[in-house]
Amino acid sequence: MIVAFCAPVVEAVLEVMLGLMGEFDLIETFFKRPPRHAELGVGDDCALLSVKAGQQLAISSDMLVEGRHFLSTVNPEHLGHKALAVNLSDLAACGAQPKAFLLSLSLPEVVPQWLTEFSKGLWALADLHQCDLVGGDTTRGPLNICITVLGEVSAQDALLRRAAQAGDDVYVSGHLGDARLALEVFRGNVSVPQAVFEAARLRMEKPTPRVALGLALRGLAHSAIDISDGLLGDLQHILKASGVGAEIETQQVLGTMACAQTAGLSQDDLLRFTLAGGDDYELLFTAPQHQRNAIAAAGHASGTAVTRIGKITASPLLVLLDPHGQPMPNSFASFDHFKTT
Amino acid sequence: MIVAFCAPVVEAVLEVMLGLMGEFDLIETFFKRPPRHAELGVGDDCALLSVKAGQQLAISSDMLVEGRHFLSTVNPEHLGHKALAVNLSDLAACGAQPKAFLLSLSLPEVVPQWLTEFSKGLWALADLHQCDLVGGDTTRGPLNICITVLGEVSAQDALLRRAAQAGDDVYVSGHLGDARLALEVFRGNVSVPQAVFEAARLRMEKPTPRVALGLALRGLAHSAIDISDGLLGDLQHILKASGVGAEIETQQVLGTMACAQTAGLSQDDLLRFTLAGGDDYELLFTAPQHQRNAIAAAGHASGTAVTRIGKITASPLLVLLDPHGQPMPNSFASFDHFKTT
Repeated sequence: MIVAFCAPVVEAVLEVMLGLMGEFDLIETFFKRPPRHAELGVGDDCALLSVKAGQQLAISSDMLVEGRHFLSTVNPEHLGHKALAVNLSDLAACGAQPKAFLLSLSLPEVVPQWLTEFSKGLWALADLHQCDLVGGDTTRGPLNICITVLGEVSAQDALLRRAAQAGDDVYVSGHLGDARLALEVFRGNVSVPQAVFEAARLRMEKPTPRVALGLALRGLAHSAIDISDGLLGDLQHILKASGVGAEIETQQVLGTMACAQTAGLSQDDLLRFTLAGGDDYELLFTAPQHQRNAIAAAGHASGTAVTRIGKITASPLLVLLDPHGQPMPNSFASFDHFKTT
Repeated sequence: MIVAFCAPVVEAVLEVMLGLMGEFDLIETFFKRPPRHAELGVGDDCALLSVKAGQQLAISSDMLVEGRHFLSTVNPEHLGHKALAVNLSDLAACGAQPKAFLLSLSLPEVVPQWLTEFSKGLWALADLHQCDLVGGDTTRGPLNICITVLGEVSAQDALLRRAAQAGDDVYVSGHLGDARLALEVFRGNVSVPQAVFEAARLRMEKPTPRVALGLALRGLAHSAIDISDGLLGDLQHILKASGVGAEIETQQVLGTMACAQTAGLSQDDLLRFTLAGGDDYELLFTAPQHQRNAIAAAGHASGTAVTRIGKITASPLLVLLDPHGQPMPNSFASFDHFKTT
């Protein structure tokens, strides 16, 4: 790969070469490697992939648009990471093992420096999860990144939204609200110390897909979803699909925000960012109470913080509890790509 | 599905309703049906798909951008058809049986009439091929349609680019050049009678993926590719991957253009449109000479015209032959999304 030798001189040569670069050179230079899992990778009409006996294919697709899912100022290496991360997060939420992905990319122009950094972030995360880039498309147009990810999971192990049961504990992984904090700083709505902003910005631009936790939860959790549009909105998907309700202890949710103590935010902002922030890419899952020790062990084994934030109820309502265990109003809107501007 | 009752009154109600429509309502209204093949379709983090024993998964992805792959004036029903057709064409070129697809859609705004027509064209083609819509994404942004299609084919049956052999006949399916003619009329570069234009426009906006022919060619053809960027450019992919060359009889290629006799074009335009037109979505394939009868039968059985246009040579050159069998210059550039404006 040419990108492995990006000393300034080589970069200058690349600049000249890529000025004349066409679609196939672009793929060859930045997005082609021999596959490890797939039978046939980039370079034919289709990629070919075997699925192990007893396993099902888990598939998901996410499209990222400039100005909506990322800012034009984003570090391209982080963007390459994030484009794959948000897709791996969907596999994690199903308890699937990542195998391969397809990348479709619409670019306003071919900028070698940008592509070098974008592909660096993409490959680093793909390598971490041994996930092959097996195909896709490149074209000229407004910046748009569409990734389809493929994984394996057996029918009985798959974690779905529809299997939450009354009495289940409700958990979240990692940290909620920090990504939204970074967005609000970018929007000029909130001001925080520089170090807090940098940490929050990394959470927004470089989320960690909880693949290892998803795998560890197979056989333990009843239901799962990844939190991309805000905790409460995504929880509603589980509740609706399972025909149940939930009681959520807001104090527990607040405690998951990494910057909660240092950002100097109002209680209202803290609640809003953690309960309905969006862009968290953490797992929200439910599990029977008798699995509490096993859940803690799964979190430990996968190196992921896991916080119990409430319980599933038979009554199909979503109730928020204040620090005194009293119900409080729920006026938090989840993120919607067509309703939010 | 609401779209099944689109009388004007219902449409007016839809207009009001959809003015407030969010991402999930939009998916629910236009893009959700129970899957026939998939274990789990739209509505969870991932779709789940079983792959039959002995079969591999064939996967391909294509991204369509307004102004590059289609004009803003396109009939939305045709666009829905085309977005899926170009992907099915990739499965056809591998000899794969379509199973499912994912649709990621970036829309500048929610226009119910447009979505009704777009989804109508999409579903009609999906139904024809019993191909389930199992997932995807919707977001607001510049119009962009990214479809990933999934099919099944056994390892030994898959038609690949790399298996052409010296002595093979070279064939194309259907009609070449008509789509490019329509584009040149739109661009104001060519003028033809209205009826010719309408026929050519249908070829551009509503290509027929040669799925049945691809399936019928399994075990007969050595190699195959779908013609999306122009015959000669796509043939070069087979030649390069197989380490061979080809002699192409241009007169045979010209004969495949449906409008060739009626459009009143110069010989030069006819050659350019058929040899390097782009957007044809026909199959280009090679097969041993002893299979000529079987290839004709495969074309007949699949209701697809098949034309023998030349042969594969051991010498790794692409040679064009004029009507007298004499070599002629090849100055035809294939379509490239980054080199062409």
